[in-house]
Amino acid sequence: MGKGQELYKKAKNLIPGGTMLLSKRPEMFLPEKWPAYYSKAKGCSVWDLDGNEYLDMSIMAIGTNTLGYANDEVDNAVINNIRNSNMATLNCPEEVALAEKLVEINPWADMVRLARSGGEANSIAIRIARAASGKDQVAICGYHGWHDWYLSANLGDDENLAGHLLPGLDPTGVPKNLKGSVLPFNYNKIEELENLFAKHPDLGVIKMEVSRNKGPEDNFLQKVRALADKHNAVLIFDECTSGFRQTFGGLHKMYGVEPDIAMYGKALGNGFGITAIVGRKQVMEAAQKTFISSTFWTERVGPTAALKTLEIMERIKSWEIITNIGNSIAQGWKTLADKHHLDINISGLPALITFSFNSTNALAYKTYLTQEMLKKNILASTGVYSCIDHKPEYIERYFNELDPVFATIKKCEEGKNIMELLEGPICHGGFKRLN
Amino acid sequence: MGKGQELYKKAKNLIPGGTMLLSKRPEMFLPEKWPAYYSKAKGCSVWDLDGNEYLDMSIMAIGTNTLGYANDEVDNAVINNIRNSNMATLNCPEEVALAEKLVEINPWADMVRLARSGGEANSIAIRIARAASGKDQVAICGYHGWHDWYLSANLGDDENLAGHLLPGLDPTGVPKNLKGSVLPFNYNKIEELENLFAKHPDLGVIKMEVSRNKGPEDNFLQKVRALADKHNAVLIFDECTSGFRQTFGGLHKMYGVEPDIAMYGKALGNGFGITAIVGRKQVMEAAQKTFISSTFWTERVGPTAALKTLEIMERIKSWEIITNIGNSIAQGWKTLADKHHLDINISGLPALITFSFNSTNALAYKTYLTQEMLKKNILASTGVYSCIDHKPEYIERYFNELDPVFATIKKCEEGKNIMELLEGPICHGGFKRLN
Repeated sequence: MGKGQELYKKAKNLIPGGTMLLSKRPEMFLPEKWPAYYSKAKGCSVWDLDGNEYLDMSIMAIGTNTLGYANDEVDNAVINNIRNSNMATLNCPEEVALAEKLVEINPWADMVRLARSGGEANSIAIRIARAASGKDQVAICGYHGWHDWYLSANLGDDENLAGHLLPGLDPTGVPKNLKGSVLPFNYNKIEELENLFAKHPDLGVIKMEVSRNKGPEDNFLQKVRALADKHNAVLIFDECTSGFRQTFGGLHKMYGVEPDIAMYGKALGNGFGITAIVGRKQVMEAAQKTFISSTFWTERVGPTAALKTLEIMERIKSWEIITNIGNSIAQGWKTLADKHHLDINISGLPALITFSFNSTNALAYKTYLTQEMLKKNILASTGVYSCIDHKPEYIERYFNELDPVFATIKKCEEGKNIMELLEGPICHGGFKRLN
Repeated sequence: MGKGQELYKKAKNLIPGGTMLLSKRPEMFLPEKWPAYYSKAKGCSVWDLDGNEYLDMSIMAIGTNTLGYANDEVDNAVINNIRNSNMATLNCPEEVALAEKLVEINPWADMVRLARSGGEANSIAIRIARAASGKDQVAICGYHGWHDWYLSANLGDDENLAGHLLPGLDPTGVPKNLKGSVLPFNYNKIEELENLFAKHPDLGVIKMEVSRNKGPEDNFLQKVRALADKHNAVLIFDECTSGFRQTFGGLHKMYGVEPDIAMYGKALGNGFGITAIVGRKQVMEAAQKTFISSTFWTERVGPTAALKTLEIMERIKSWEIITNIGNSIAQGWKTLADKHHLDINISGLPALITFSFNSTNALAYKTYLTQEMLKKNILASTGVYSCIDHKPEYIERYFNELDPVFATIKKCEEGKNIMELLEGPICHGGFKRLN
């Protein structure tokens, strides 16, 4: 057993769940074998605690590092400001510069609040929107974090939820009085949102991801915007995951529909903790009617990293680079599946591309893939979150190693026993949307 | 007007409220004159955007930097790990080491979750406690952040709340269905907590600060612990502010009362964003029955900074150093007030010591003090949060400059018009407990 799995054994006794993020649990990849911890990372390479180097063809730190791990330009800016102190009684000027830049990127917006994690950015956006609308009920479509306001959607037992939230997600510990405060609707089903407004006069906020596995159909986003206007509701686009993947800013830019609030996270600081709530003045100023304040939202690393990340992104058009890489990976999967006559389904934004095996053995195949690729020193699962350091030679290496894996999976589809090929337990399912 | 105030004018148009933390608003110190932003800081010195150097005898970044600004040892550890990447698909081993260290410091505890801001640490603790107790209602005493669960206490209009929450704090945007879910009780009033349990069978969590302006009387904390045991309730001590000020860990160590969960923040990472929820296994494992997960809780700066900060604190016994400094400052205020026959009230933990003028002009005097001390290149208000770099010569300088300020205030108490001495508006009140 490697040092990583040894440490993870200890972690499971010290940390409920073992890790801070569900999607980074070793069991999500390869139970008992995943290296689990890193000593260093650079570009798209990761070193484990035993000094083994891996090519990261998986989630790239859950999509935070589109400019690669340990990007020198970003890190130098951060380190310079750390030397000048990460904190003081006075405020850091970088937070104003970042607010200004985010308003420039989102010309429909005027004001910005910053936070340090996506969950709290969601909670800030919801607090502001509820304060601005004067109404408590929120219509949701998509995944929006771990906080009470969102998980309360699962206090009912509506079957609709399975399409939005994580399967099996139990809202234990969420106050039962919140039941009915969050109302789900399905993507591309405008009539569901219309019905929610018809039934719920206290509905004042729409919170959604701009695009999920597929894009909007039949002017869906325009119709959502029109409904928000008609009912004087605040429209929030959660771009924490989708931001900076396909445009310099939100995915909504591609569709020409402007929200009242947009949130950014993940890629914004190239791996440093920073999230942003960007919105129109008349909505954002409602923040002053309530209390939204936290000590560590004043630290300097986050806005410093974001400013430099945005500068680099804009200069090199990183969203085009990672979209092209993602498209080439999707094409590679398709070619390989065709070659081996395997039935796979590819979905997601190009820079967050994933596939699934259309088979009852899908999870076992996924586990086998990770197991075999790890032997070739590649971190791989059924999704690749692209970064600018995913050079053609790495992608070529990845597909060369994936070829025999697909060949074996085809044999399993024809009768070979996949379970005999697995050297440990099957990986966990769970976050269907993210894996 | 200095560059800082110019930038702050811009900030107020870009950021609702102007800053990310209420307590760092320039108006809380000296409207129109406060330097507002820093370019660098070191030890207990801060440089503004015009290059002016100030001695920080105020809130030291709201108490985050007990080892001084830009502490080389902490910063070098952080920078080293940034060079090795702040993020990866794999987890950082520092989070396990930090969890282990926090359990060592809190021998009653077994497990740890980490977050990045105090507000979210509070929300995690409450979620886990509610999940563990199976009950929704929470008894609170003290200040516990900006989230819905806590501000819902203000949805009622109970007069008791004035003693806990911020005066004038309006819970706009907090779902009205949460009304009644949080029940305040006053410090040192055990009968109030007894009454809450008698009236509310769904009360399953007690959340409190260990000590507020004064310490526990008549075995108050022991009685709270006994009530929690009797009613099978989860007892949470919020040590975000009090931690590492007077002991190596929580203030509760001084009183020999152990909670089921304790939270740490502020001083834990010497200015880097890191907060921790530390608890007993049987309570903490309830985290696995719910969903608590966020991308940026996996970044490496926070736990790296905390590990090094704890190492230094333990080595030099920083809590003793800052307590001694705080006591000497309290003594200095007392001596100066006696000399000028001024009536002041000193309160708070020594390392977070504050005073107030017992006068109807208190806010004007506070503003005048800040105004005059700023002219002497000292950041000052009516509280000093100590750090290890507050050397005797700085404290001597501070009191030398404060002497004539107190003399003038005495003259105002005797009839001189304080308003004629102010060169701008009076500072804002607000956070009474913190200022």
